[in-house]
Amino acid sequence: MEFLVRTENLLPPDTPDETREQLRKAERARATQLREAGVLKRLWRVPGRNATIGLYEAQDPAALHDALVSLPMWKWMDISVEALATHPQEQ
Amino acid sequence: MEFLVRTENLLPPDTPDETREQLRKAERARATQLREAGVLKRLWRVPGRNATIGLYEAQDPAALHDALVSLPMWKWMDISVEALATHPQEQ
Amino acid sequence: MEFLVRTENLLPPDTPDETREQLRKAERARATQLREAGVLKRLWRVPGRNATIGLYEAQDPAALHDALVSLPMWKWMDISVEALATHPQEQ
Amino acid sequence: MEFLVRTENLLPPDTPDETREQLRKAERARATQLREAGVLKRLWRVPGRNATIGLYEAQDPAALHDALVSLPMWKWMDISVEALATHPQEQ
Amino acid sequence: MEFLVRTENLLPPDTPDETREQLRKAERARATQLREAGVLKRLWRVPGRNATIGLYEAQDPAALHDALVSLPMWKWMDISVEALATHPQEQ
Amino acid sequence: MEFLVRTENLLPPDTPDETREQLRKAERARATQLREAGVLKRLWRVPGRNATIGLYEAQDPAALHDALVSLPMWKWMDISVEALATHPQEQ
Amino acid sequence: MEFLVRTENLLPPDTPDETREQLRKAERARATQLREAGVLKRLWRVPGRNATIGLYEAQDPAALHDALVSLPMWKWMDISVEALATHPQEQ
Amino acid sequence: MEFLVRTENLLPPDTPDETREQLRKAERARATQLREAGVLKRLWRVPGRNATIGLYEAQDPAALHDALVSLPMWKWMDISVEALATHPQEQ
Amino acid sequence: MEFLVRTENLLPPDTPDETREQLRKAERARATQLREAGVLKRLWRVPGRNATIGLYEAQDPAALHDALVSLPMWKWMDISVEALATHPQEQ
Amino acid sequence: MEFLVRTENLLPPDTPDETREQLRKAERARATQLREAGVLKRLWRVPGRNATIGLYEAQDPAALHDALVSLPMWKWMDISVEALATHPQEQ
Repeated sequence: MEFLVRTENLLPPDTPDETREQLRKAERARATQLREAGVLKRLWRVPGRNATIGLYEAQDPAALHDALVSLPMWKWMDISVEALATHPQEQ
Repeated sequence: MEFLVRTENLLPPDTPDETREQLRKAERARATQLREAGVLKRLWRVPGRNATIGLYEAQDPAALHDALVSLPMWKWMDISVEALATHPQEQ
Repeated sequence: MEFLVRTENLLPPDTPDETREQLRKAERARATQLREAGVLKRLWRVPGRNATIGLYEAQDPAALHDALVSLPMWKWMDISVEALATHPQEQ
Repeated sequence: MEFLVRTENLLPPDTPDETREQLRKAERARATQLREAGVLKRLWRVPGRNATIGLYEAQDPAALHDALVSLPMWKWMDISVEALATHPQEQ
Repeated sequence: MEFLVRTENLLPPDTPDETREQLRKAERARATQLREAGVLKRLWRVPGRNATIGLYEAQDPAALHDALVSLPMWKWMDISVEALATHPQEQ
Repeated sequence: MEFLVRTENLLPPDTPDETREQLRKAERARATQLREAGVLKRLWRVPGRNATIGLYEAQDPAALHDALVSLPMWKWMDISVEALATHPQEQ
Repeated sequence: MEFLVRTENLLPPDTPDETREQLRKAERARATQLREAGVLKRLWRVPGRNATIGLYEAQDPAALHDALVSLPMWKWMDISVEALATHPQEQ
Repeated sequence: MEFLVRTENLLPPDTPDETREQLRKAERARATQLREAGVLKRLWRVPGRNATIGLYEAQDPAALHDALVSLPMWKWMDISVEALATHPQEQ
Repeated sequence: MEFLVRTENLLPPDTPDETREQLRKAERARATQLREAGVLKRLWRVPGRNATIGLYEAQDPAALHDALVSLPMWKWMDISVEALATHPQEQ
Repeated sequence: MEFLVRTENLLPPDTPDETREQLRKAERARATQLREAGVLKRLWRVPGRNATIGLYEAQDPAALHDALVSLPMWKWMDISVEALATHPQEQ
């Protein structure tokens, strides 16, 4: 099933650049893995914000939760999830 | 998977009593079927309101949608759904 | 550019079934055209509601507006639009 | 009587892993006790968040309050409670 | 147990005066009964609005729900309920 | 006149237990004085939260303000006040 | 004591002009009386809206309520009231 | 001074097309006059909605109010206004 | 023109009393100047909060902004401003 | 295409004046560049706040995002963006 996932990254502005860069690299690496595993299907930026909107696919909400928690930035992210129902037009 | 479902019944106050009663009976009959099918697991009233909180189980959001739309009151209901993730404590 | 579009269909519950059915057919026909034109890329249902989340592509917000206004249900829909920025991970 | 309880865990992201782990273990131990006492009946995760939705049973709101305050994470949790009314369909 | 109950009366402004007056009298009569039964303990007006804040006492949320539904104005009222926990200072 | 007063206590979770205890004792002592002076008439806990709902009586909003500011926890409290109008049913 | 009073006038757009004009005249006449009685001290328009912000003085919230209910437009108005505390700078 | 003005047009969906067209023409004519008078400086559509965002200039909020009320659609519009302060960068 | 100005003072609770007292004195001194200059016309306290509602007069929003920024507490204040339109009843 | 951009500057009140001044100068320098590049078309202050409303032009949301991220204050700013559709009246 598919989910719409919003993330707001609340990493404090005074985080040292080095830490920030390390986290960003690790985040991107993990996102690439999720993409290759078919979990992360699309990702957009909310313009102007350190925030994303993503289209995810997972077996159920618990599997999605595990995928999101595996992101290195997770502890700093405010995440909201909407479960999507396939629209009959697409079947 | 399980869902938490809130319904607010917006049937207009000036609905004739007979219509209201017919709808209520049909609603209860359909709810009983969903209960027997294992879709509706628990149902509570929000005290003071014509509103409910329900615990549902369905294969996916589309199946839940079909179950909710099958309720005779659906056209008058404002419904919001939250997908629930099994908590590791319960596994 | 891509847009995330939410629609809430506020067609009154007492709309005659025939009118409702006509509108729904016309809506689907127009949606199919938008899909074929590459404007409507994905469409989901918000479970439990007469509401959708769609992924649209249009040249600019004015073109998106024209596409949405062309939907036969438009007059009864409460629509909100978010402009999406391509994420560098996807380039 | 039954209550729907939402918790948001606001433990700061920079909490040392050891402290976090200790708190989590203590939390789980106390939750198990509440479960065995029949106070905590069901527990779900809000997918993507450090948050839960729980179904509790207690004699009254004061008893529920005492149960929630007894959780080791309580000081860091933002909790909201809804009192549930038994639905006539379930009687 | 005690509950804080807010009511907003949404009776349409174009309700005939006679109907309005009948409802108001019936409402007051029922409120008096609830008061005598110890269910309605205090009642205030929200200044400027056709709205009240009330302190109720009932065995549980279901009993409170039945009391509120018994008010003749119930169909036109938007009601919200908070369950109150006795404060240790008052014990 | 009477007021409905909500307080949310925002004392940081990492406040030393001793400080917290001192403040709580001072708070309770001052609350007892306000109670004896007829200013604090009823006090409830919002279940699950470090929050209260209180029924206060004071000559006017300025006098109520002075009473609330006199609480030792005031600096850490987020307080909202509603002025209540006596309901004609109670006169 | 003084109150800040916001009103939103929800008179339906299809109200006949004559009715609207009659109500407006009656409203203004009553407002003038409240002004002369020292109850209505200042009145502003919220620009762009059929809405006002007013500074009222009344003995207590119940007296203010009676003054507001006496306005001919009251049945169509959504009103919110804030009790104001005299600031020490003004004493 | 300049103002940011949002309008939501709430004309009922079942308004006859002829009435709707007449209102739209009259609205556009009046808007053109305001534009020529230097009151309406820019106008945008909120994509997907029957809504606009406009940049207006008027001597003061009362003059802006008069300009907005002069729009033939005013009775059906929900309008909100923000007064803008010139930014020092632009002086 | 007149403005309604709300301020919430967010000075941290752990600010040393001396600093707090200095700021408060400076604040009051500046407020007195604004009062004498006819900029600050009325000031109220929001009961229970470290917050005020003020009636200001300034030539335009930019002048009001400069007046508010000149308050020594400004950096810690969350301020919202509404431009008020003179009501015809007052002309 | 054009965008309406709101910024709230959340730079902590205890930021040293020197740092604040450096950031402000860098911010203004970058804003001037964006203005000269035709990206920043208008800028206003929200009166009373450390906040702005700006009219931007960029090729698409991603280009706007890059422009906003290039502002030295970006890490401390809470930004929200609305994509604007050209209004037919302006074509």
